[in-house]
Amino acid sequence: MYRTKTCGELRLENLNQTVTLAGWVQKNRRMGGMTFVDLRDRYGITQLVFNQEINPELCEQANRLGREFVLQIKGTVSERSNKNKNIPTGDIEIIVSELKILNQSAVPPFTIEDETDGGDDIRMQYRYLDLRRTAVRANLELRHKMAFETRRYLDALGFLEVETPVLIKSTPEGARDFVVPSRMNQGQFYALPQSPQTFKQLLMVSGFDRYFQIVKCFRDEDLRADRQPEFTQIDCEMSFIEQEDILQTFEGLTKHLFKSIKNIDLQEFPRMTYADAMRFYGSDKPDIRFEMQFVELMDTLKGHGFSVFDEAEYIGGICAKGAAVYTRKQIDALTDFVKRPQIGAKGLVYARVEQDGSVKSSVDKFYSQEVLQKLKEKMRAQNGDLILIISGDNSHKAQKQLSELRLEMGNQLGLRDKNKFCCLWVVDFPLLEWDEETQRFYAMHHPFTSPKPEDIALLESNPGTVRANAYDMVINGVEVGGGSIRIHDSGLQKKMFEILGFTAEKAEYQFGFLMNAFKYGAPPHGGIAYGLDRLVSLFAGLDSIRDCIAFPKNNQGRDVMIDAPSLIDQEQLKELGLD
Amino acid sequence: MYRTKTCGELRLENLNQTVTLAGWVQKNRRMGGMTFVDLRDRYGITQLVFNQEINPELCEQANRLGREFVLQIKGTVSERSNKNKNIPTGDIEIIVSELKILNQSAVPPFTIEDETDGGDDIRMQYRYLDLRRTAVRANLELRHKMAFETRRYLDALGFLEVETPVLIKSTPEGARDFVVPSRMNQGQFYALPQSPQTFKQLLMVSGFDRYFQIVKCFRDEDLRADRQPEFTQIDCEMSFIEQEDILQTFEGLTKHLFKSIKNIDLQEFPRMTYADAMRFYGSDKPDIRFEMQFVELMDTLKGHGFSVFDEAEYIGGICAKGAAVYTRKQIDALTDFVKRPQIGAKGLVYARVEQDGSVKSSVDKFYSQEVLQKLKEKMRAQNGDLILIISGDNSHKAQKQLSELRLEMGNQLGLRDKNKFCCLWVVDFPLLEWDEETQRFYAMHHPFTSPKPEDIALLESNPGTVRANAYDMVINGVEVGGGSIRIHDSGLQKKMFEILGFTAEKAEYQFGFLMNAFKYGAPPHGGIAYGLDRLVSLFAGLDSIRDCIAFPKNNQGRDVMIDAPSLIDQEQLKELGLD
Repeated sequence: MYRTKTCGELRLENLNQTVTLAGWVQKNRRMGGMTFVDLRDRYGITQLVFNQEINPELCEQANRLGREFVLQIKGTVSERSNKNKNIPTGDIEIIVSELKILNQSAVPPFTIEDETDGGDDIRMQYRYLDLRRTAVRANLELRHKMAFETRRYLDALGFLEVETPVLIKSTPEGARDFVVPSRMNQGQFYALPQSPQTFKQLLMVSGFDRYFQIVKCFRDEDLRADRQPEFTQIDCEMSFIEQEDILQTFEGLTKHLFKSIKNIDLQEFPRMTYADAMRFYGSDKPDIRFEMQFVELMDTLKGHGFSVFDEAEYIGGICAKGAAVYTRKQIDALTDFVKRPQIGAKGLVYARVEQDGSVKSSVDKFYSQEVLQKLKEKMRAQNGDLILIISGDNSHKAQKQLSELRLEMGNQLGLRDKNKFCCLWVVDFPLLEWDEETQRFYAMHHPFTSPKPEDIALLESNPGTVRANAYDMVINGVEVGGGSIRIHDSGLQKKMFEILGFTAEKAEYQFGFLMNAFKYGAPPHGGIAYGLDRLVSLFAGLDSIRDCIAFPKNNQGRDVMIDAPSLIDQEQLKELGLD
Repeated sequence: MYRTKTCGELRLENLNQTVTLAGWVQKNRRMGGMTFVDLRDRYGITQLVFNQEINPELCEQANRLGREFVLQIKGTVSERSNKNKNIPTGDIEIIVSELKILNQSAVPPFTIEDETDGGDDIRMQYRYLDLRRTAVRANLELRHKMAFETRRYLDALGFLEVETPVLIKSTPEGARDFVVPSRMNQGQFYALPQSPQTFKQLLMVSGFDRYFQIVKCFRDEDLRADRQPEFTQIDCEMSFIEQEDILQTFEGLTKHLFKSIKNIDLQEFPRMTYADAMRFYGSDKPDIRFEMQFVELMDTLKGHGFSVFDEAEYIGGICAKGAAVYTRKQIDALTDFVKRPQIGAKGLVYARVEQDGSVKSSVDKFYSQEVLQKLKEKMRAQNGDLILIISGDNSHKAQKQLSELRLEMGNQLGLRDKNKFCCLWVVDFPLLEWDEETQRFYAMHHPFTSPKPEDIALLESNPGTVRANAYDMVINGVEVGGGSIRIHDSGLQKKMFEILGFTAEKAEYQFGFLMNAFKYGAPPHGGIAYGLDRLVSLFAGLDSIRDCIAFPKNNQGRDVMIDAPSLIDQEQLKELGLD
């Protein structure tokens, strides 16, 4: 061992001890006849002192140390005259007697500080230096703790972690698979799993009863802001359970994580149907840190000669508490916000509730004060509130626009505190989604999700209205987990594949092993999967999942540090039959 | 929840309780007017009773149940008259009042019993049924426990589990990579990692100090008996340590696993140099559950006119205690054993030490009793022992042959007890291996392994003799882990690449990021990786790693259950630019 102590553990009670430390030079500075070096390791920073008078040679050596040099030092713990209350080791310093440079360092291309001067690109290229920054490393320490506490909780409940294979079969349903050419079976390919879904269901057929796995999954998608081609799931499945059992078990896991990691006690999670989530928040992952629910205004505002509303299929409003003080300029900015192409609203109508109770709207010429007072009542608006209204000829789109506006108002009014956590179960998702473009139904969750028993009759007559035993866990407007009760009947599974447009041959080719397994006594089962990256980001208050991944890829799916993907040898291609 | 209790937990103290159980029909049988059903789940088996007289209808239903039907039953816990001492629930049975068939089952293609009638192939095809067998599931429960205890131990020591990427860059050194074509960067490929080696070293450069990961790795090799294309490593790395620290830390981990999982207290592990392992056991992974060390016999047996020995470059013997009773037929079988092409010895010489102390050998005509007595003395053989001698014109090959013979004798003499565990560190591996075919040096461990400081001078003059700070953990003759102290100096790393025949360009292209990282203050570091599959197999007493993997692949790298690898859509190929 190159050290007797770390740079994070020395305190006043270690006074006069002789210690050996090792670490990196955070900085060095001269003051009077003294040289001070901050020595850093994962555990903290300790101040080293060199005295020009007592040991000029050693002090001279210390003066020549560059940033990020790797040192081993021996010295005596001494009390600081000028204590630093900001760090746990701030009461002491080390009077150095021996100094050994273990490795030198070139000048790093950016500063290794919480607030660095390095841009995104250079930090990604030198990720190994970026990871030296305490803020970045803390995210990965948090990630370790969350994964470990997840395992501890699930192990205590009798869940078994079982590794499922990474080299599997391509099932080009849903997102695109990454594929792996087989050398031993030329012309054939493995695929990397988008999730261990079918394997965990097979484990239930095998009687494993309670399974989990923290596991890498892969999707070859065009990467949006917060997607990675490889990501990590906390994947879980249980047998002989109903939806309620899953909700209880994993609400428990989530509470355990908040308690053990952040010392936050959470109350019982509220539950909301998908229908209500869409109706009141225009989103299947509402941020319920703040109210500002949608109020549908069709009855109130239609038929008064304002053609935009008169022709609308949906009119809805939100009430922003205390925002009547918004200036014209601020409201214009909100109008621009909802008209941005990403959101796509045609416009924004507002109504200010003045301090005297009167309502002043942007469409006053169409609405009498009497109607506006009815609006105020319907919106439960109070003096000083601002009512914001969006309409459209497509309910779903208009609600989505209003949802974006609601979130923006939440931001502007400071209602989305990163240190407040509001968890929510969204339940009763639709089983199927109709896709206009391809004119067919898609599984909203996945093809193995069970319809609600009472809705099975509708599968033939009106598939679009069938609800599923499917649920999402939403925290602060982020979908951190989702799952469902699965079909365990081979006949019903076959029917589902039919509805989803699989020919019998295709269903057999892709999922024959699963349907076959169901013939040998499949138990009722269901599960859930959390996105670990998102969950960690949420706990860490990060804007991007990238910051909690040690070696992330950029938006082109590229690791710029190692420069992958890359060309491979002609010889390799030849062996794979790909030249 | 479909049950109030599992099938493994009811005891006499639960007498008269009303319970609901769910599980699979292990078997049902009629006796007198009663029907008995064994209901099985992961936790155990509980006997259900149906009485023809009391409830004929229910009993009739029970009679029609097939093997592996999935049931939910309600009933009362009752004391058995005919207790079964072999199972923990053997004191009780359930008088069933309600029976619900949750799912039917076709007749399984083999019996779901510890001793099944199913052959390998059919059990692999129906792996989900094979996994129902208690013996198979127990292996995976053990695997879960071992992984969990590993994490617990390392977490307590401050190790952080960090996920390294799966989509990385191909480095066609060592084994073949699996590659993944990139759709977004056509013509370029990711590779799947053979190990996270370079990433864990980068994490040390980043100051992570103590890293581990239980992680899937991949090798596209022609599969021998006990290889899988994807396998799992317990991968570890530490900074500011010397070899001794690694050995202590991971000896501790191994002891913890034996203690926590098998309640075995292990003594301090002996250590043996690679040179001694080869000299005394002809293997870098000696099974030291038994002695039977090699004795070199060149001085003793050369020059007596037996041309085979006279011309040999190596003559070595082992002494098999008490095996003088071996018949001529048994010794002939041993001769056939060493002459098999896989072993390749030319022959086998034996010398029996008779009960009267005289020695009788198969080459008596060349050796006087005096010489044979010297042989006996040299071999420390006693009356009743059998001396077995192998020679050859290539020391290394002859020693390997003698090693195989030693292991076989260990088997025959019952010296390789699966319930006895002998751990060993093999240290001081050579840094380099000369390959005759390609006429170049290869890294024995990997190109990042540090030479011993005292041997660095030999790198230029006599590279083949340079010893590395590399070590293997061997248990019962199985290499379960191996590692090394790494090079942390970019200059030395560059020199290593040169010795290994990398051009400067190739080294830069493949490992430039690592050599670059070393310029910014790399700490001294080193690590180890365990093969989890092998470690679990060893703990479980299995002959193949396949039996502790949930969904293994066969020798052709094929998952016969899901039928992967397989053809993929033309559309997919086209998108990847591979059509």
